[in-house]
Amino acid sequence: MTDHSRTPVTVLGLGPMGQALAAAFLAAEHPTTVWNRTPGKGDQLAAQGATVASTAAEAAAASGLIVVCVLDYDAVEQILAAAEPVLAGRTVVNLTADSPDRARQTAQWAAERGIQYLDGAIMTPTETIGGPEAVVLYSGPKDLYAGHAPALAALGGTQSHLGEDPGRAAAHDVALLGIFWTALTGIMHAFALAKAENIAARDLAGFARGITDLLSPSIDGFAANIDAGEHPGTTTNLLSAAAGIAHIVHASEQHGIDAGLLRAAHALTRQAIADGHGTDEFTRLTDTLLRHATR
Amino acid sequence: MTDHSRTPVTVLGLGPMGQALAAAFLAAEHPTTVWNRTPGKGDQLAAQGATVASTAAEAAAASGLIVVCVLDYDAVEQILAAAEPVLAGRTVVNLTADSPDRARQTAQWAAERGIQYLDGAIMTPTETIGGPEAVVLYSGPKDLYAGHAPALAALGGTQSHLGEDPGRAAAHDVALLGIFWTALTGIMHAFALAKAENIAARDLAGFARGITDLLSPSIDGFAANIDAGEHPGTTTNLLSAAAGIAHIVHASEQHGIDAGLLRAAHALTRQAIADGHGTDEFTRLTDTLLRHATR
Ligand SMILES: NC(=O)c1ccc[n+]([C@@H]2O[C@H](COP(=O)([O-])OP(=O)(O)OC[C@H]3O[C@@H](n4cnc5c(N)ncnc54)[C@H](OP(=O)(O)O)[C@@H]3O)[C@@H](O)[C@H]2O)c1
Ligand SMILES: NC(=O)c1ccc[n+]([C@@H]2O[C@H](COP(=O)([O-])OP(=O)(O)OC[C@H]3O[C@@H](n4cnc5c(N)ncnc54)[C@H](OP(=O)(O)O)[C@@H]3O)[C@@H](O)[C@H]2O)c1
Repeated sequence: MTDHSRTPVTVLGLGPMGQALAAAFLAAEHPTTVWNRTPGKGDQLAAQGATVASTAAEAAAASGLIVVCVLDYDAVEQILAAAEPVLAGRTVVNLTADSPDRARQTAQWAAERGIQYLDGAIMTPTETIGGPEAVVLYSGPKDLYAGHAPALAALGGTQSHLGEDPGRAAAHDVALLGIFWTALTGIMHAFALAKAENIAARDLAGFARGITDLLSPSIDGFAANIDAGEHPGTTTNLLSAAAGIAHIVHASEQHGIDAGLLRAAHALTRQAIADGHGTDEFTRLTDTLLRHATR
Repeated sequence: MTDHSRTPVTVLGLGPMGQALAAAFLAAEHPTTVWNRTPGKGDQLAAQGATVASTAAEAAAASGLIVVCVLDYDAVEQILAAAEPVLAGRTVVNLTADSPDRARQTAQWAAERGIQYLDGAIMTPTETIGGPEAVVLYSGPKDLYAGHAPALAALGGTQSHLGEDPGRAAAHDVALLGIFWTALTGIMHAFALAKAENIAARDLAGFARGITDLLSPSIDGFAANIDAGEHPGTTTNLLSAAAGIAHIVHASEQHGIDAGLLRAAHALTRQAIADGHGTDEFTRLTDTLLRHATR
């Protein structure tokens, strides 16, 4: 039985992530109302006790806490515009991924309408939501976050408030997802190159796990270099990295496989070398990116 | 005291990795002869008992097992050409990183001169060499590898023979290093974007570790999709990924930060979507790369 002492929550958007969020609120016994543009996606949630609304405004009217999680902020804008008549005085927590400037614009739009607004970013996959491994970042008014933290705890694991600037969660999100998507694209490129060399994906997989396991333990050292502005290339340097990357480009192009990702990495190392930093550690590239920034 | 019952080993090239290899052979009490193009780099090894030769040929003449580890295969060719008069009948193990075709060419060159040849690739950083975490891959004649495996065990951890094709270790190497360098470049991009948003590298670091920790546990599932040719996008798909990557490009370019790496990833997802695979999982990209291969 649903515990009606718990805060009612509305979830707008029932893609894979919206469904996971709604399921976590239901599991924590929050009265949960859901809505999705295309009908039918709430059926399973309804079986678990959710109320399915037929419009975004109807769904929003059911709760003081409204979570939005859709494809992008264009979709968010359309949804919030449709629900606008009922939103004043309620809290919108926007967990849709987008850029920091869009988060700040949406916060501004909400402020002008008396809508309380938190921006957020989900850093872990759907299957983690509600469990210990979930990581969700928030930014916006601190007191507003504190008031809703007990309900948001239903999403599991690590719920972190990063600051008052509404763009701060999105700033972390774009930075961190940049790592995720480049690494994932690199993994898909590796499997392609391996297939072209008659190596099955399963035969590469163990080694690929080994390579990705090297990343995490290196990150604190990278960060220390970057914050200190010191990049001593004693055990490996940019000249050696550039040579290594060039071999991968060459091997890919021998098979006619697009090496755009590796060529972009190579161009950046070449830039740092042209700046006179060839014997520096790879961490110099952060500085190279900022130094050549065009604004 | 050096145990003279152990196989004498020569190490040509004393960059950070060559020095680590020589130190590991010395630690395992192999009589070790070293050479480097630029003199002076063997001084510390000499203090640990290494013999420093003044030419590559002199160094090669001291041992039946000759390990070469330098910047690239152009450097390898120059060194082996200089040592050629003494190489016939000896074994060269080339641990320099390069592409599979270069490995096969070098194996061919060696075969024509009666030089026994193994190609190899080192998958872990200098500090792992000689310890349990070292991973070194080899390819070439199986019996030749078996004969030298006891000496090569001095390099530590995992020493794997992958097959007779001399290009096979390099094929693994370019595939796996493609993951490493794209992820590392992605990490440097993330730190740059964070700095532009006033987030110190140390403040992003913990979250960055969290993101890279997501990679390894996903790899066996990716490999299963790829080998099966099935890419069910049930929990996340290419349309959602493309939207996410577009936000990162946008956020980077707002700060004038070069987003070449992310634009390359985005172009590839767009290609897969144009092929009609928008609702597939990200693993579809391996197939996209191979399908559009130009040879
Ligand atoms: N899936 C994950 O593992 C994951 C992990 C971390 C973060 N995220 C983030 O979570 C957000 C949602 O992702 P998702 O995986 O659930 O799938 P998604 O494919 O990014 O979003 C699908 C949802 O967006 C809705 N939508 C799209 N355009 C719309 C519009 N113009 N008006 C109204 N609704 C619209 C869809 O409604 P219809 O059903 O009507 O099309 C559906 O509910 C994204 O920002 C994503 O980056 C996802
Ligand atoms: N460092 C690592 O963590 C690591 C990890 C895995 C694999 N590897 C691989 O190991 C190999 C060696 O790397 P490294 O880190 O030792 O440093 P490196 O900078 O790649 O190579 C430096 C070595 O190459 C020599 N060299 C360059 N051009 C030469 C030429 N034309 N003739 C003769 N020697 C030449 C240098 O001699 P001088 O001193 O005379 O310049 C020096 O001994 C590379 O293939 C690298 O990819 C390195």
